[in-house]
Amino acid sequence: MRIVIDAMGGDHAPKEIVLGAQAAIKDFKDLSITLVGNEEDIKKHLTNSERIEIIHTTEKITSEDEPVKAVRKKKNASLVLMANEVKENKADACISAGNTGALMSAGLFIVGRIKGIERPALSPTLPTKDGKGFLLLDVGANVDAKAQHLAQYALMGSIYAEKVRGITSPKVGLLNVGTEAGKGNDLTKKAYEKMEELPINFIGNVEARSLLEGGCDVVVTDGFSGNIALKTVEGTALTLFSMMKNKFMTNTKTKIAALLAKKELKGLKDELDYSEYGGAGLFGLKSPVIKAHGSSDQRAIYSAIKQAMQMVELNVTGKIEEAVTALPKEEA
Amino acid sequence: MRIVIDAMGGDHAPKEIVLGAQAAIKDFKDLSITLVGNEEDIKKHLTNSERIEIIHTTEKITSEDEPVKAVRKKKNASLVLMANEVKENKADACISAGNTGALMSAGLFIVGRIKGIERPALSPTLPTKDGKGFLLLDVGANVDAKAQHLAQYALMGSIYAEKVRGITSPKVGLLNVGTEAGKGNDLTKKAYEKMEELPINFIGNVEARSLLEGGCDVVVTDGFSGNIALKTVEGTALTLFSMMKNKFMTNTKTKIAALLAKKELKGLKDELDYSEYGGAGLFGLKSPVIKAHGSSDQRAIYSAIKQAMQMVELNVTGKIEEAVTALPKEEA
Repeated sequence: MRIVIDAMGGDHAPKEIVLGAQAAIKDFKDLSITLVGNEEDIKKHLTNSERIEIIHTTEKITSEDEPVKAVRKKKNASLVLMANEVKENKADACISAGNTGALMSAGLFIVGRIKGIERPALSPTLPTKDGKGFLLLDVGANVDAKAQHLAQYALMGSIYAEKVRGITSPKVGLLNVGTEAGKGNDLTKKAYEKMEELPINFIGNVEARSLLEGGCDVVVTDGFSGNIALKTVEGTALTLFSMMKNKFMTNTKTKIAALLAKKELKGLKDELDYSEYGGAGLFGLKSPVIKAHGSSDQRAIYSAIKQAMQMVELNVTGKIEEAVTALPKEEA
Repeated sequence: MRIVIDAMGGDHAPKEIVLGAQAAIKDFKDLSITLVGNEEDIKKHLTNSERIEIIHTTEKITSEDEPVKAVRKKKNASLVLMANEVKENKADACISAGNTGALMSAGLFIVGRIKGIERPALSPTLPTKDGKGFLLLDVGANVDAKAQHLAQYALMGSIYAEKVRGITSPKVGLLNVGTEAGKGNDLTKKAYEKMEELPINFIGNVEARSLLEGGCDVVVTDGFSGNIALKTVEGTALTLFSMMKNKFMTNTKTKIAALLAKKELKGLKDELDYSEYGGAGLFGLKSPVIKAHGSSDQRAIYSAIKQAMQMVELNVTGKIEEAVTALPKEEA
């Protein structure tokens, strides 16, 4: 199996990308990796090039670039060349920690959709109190979703949770403003009905308040609301940790308290760090496309590689295509 | 001025409602209060009935009741009788800590909308890192909002922030998936354009990630996304505090740490407690209608009363009507 990685994407590129790739090569004997980016910069960090190829390019897409335009104009950008490798079947899956919008564009326009899937969904796994985590989709690939899209997300999410995360009969919830059936806006009311018809374990509506409590393996929502939920979790956690840190700096007593509980508080932060779960999958594309977090370190890149490998080995893309083909045909 | 309060709504009714009302009566000499609910139960907690009237009823709407139906069927429920007092001009404003949906229904169908306002908005004030807080609207009064509704929320929020919170030229943001103009779904793209035309200090899009960092005095969104944002903040904070508490119970060292930093960590919780800012206003109705949090204690009820008084004194309802009337006429 070969996985292609955008070596220039993310805050710590190319160093952490290269180190993560090397660590994965060391652990997985049947893995080959293609790194796309500035060869000179990549080689600075590459101590062992066994089963690692480099495609050299100096062009790259930055976080400031307008996604769709950048993918169209920057034909030699590392992210674009990476997607080309997958399109041309030279690699089985691809990973980038770069511009999320550009990766979604490259996924949609270069890698292409699975037949029958109307919209891909960006699908990160978020942490929960019980440590199990849950898959949230979509968080922004499609900000004007229809009920039919949400039903397809439910199907894709359920397949991923079952195959890759090894959960039997994954519990799928619909993010909504109340738990009772019949609650919500036009979109969620219609999606609820469609989700009831699917061959999945649909457990009904779930409120944003209980997301991190666990209870669902997969939570389905439109890209706008999903983006709001994801970023509100991140923002609230960051703000709380920052306020907590200030509190521990108040006086000598609190400073001693911070020292005494340092390990455990660090542990709390780690439990909420979702890089362990890998990156956010862009589900619904012909091959696995993984968005690693912009701040990814080598451990996060390693996790994303492992995740991509599992998606390839377990043929998640094929299973999604089978499942969507088996559904009764619906109006768009 | 007379304020009417649903004495039977909320987790700690009627005790905390009665005590909060009494505290307000003590502090504000020109205030009269009408409490609606079971007279016997109310009187158990009422030590001084100066300027406090009681409207006796035994019927009430519970949190399990279906809102619209309950308001229609339970004609003698405390919440319905409360709204009637405002409608009949026997009181200037009303407050309930009960069923949110029922209060929104009673507000809409009994108190009625301000002429020109298409949809009322439920508008709580959320805490920020800098302690200033921001008004978020709508959080669920209207889950299928149009751009024109969002523009009206912006106008109402700006007026409230200026008049009641005393902020000069309040900064109004639009909750969105990116900060650049042109980002978002159909709704936010259209709302952005409309908000640019308003006589307010519109500062553009704001991402969910930075909500609690401050930076906006008013954040506008549709009721569905607003509900997701609000409940995600609440849920994330609750989960984090609960996980933190567990961490402090790990061993003797962490238990000592918890004791040493107890006061400061309690302070952190208080800073995030938004009952200080009063309740959530239901803006766009003919008279001030305030939703106090279900878990309101007497302090929260006192704050809600103060907030209602300010809204009456500063004629927020009248100002909203003036402002919406002054706008150029638009298609719905």
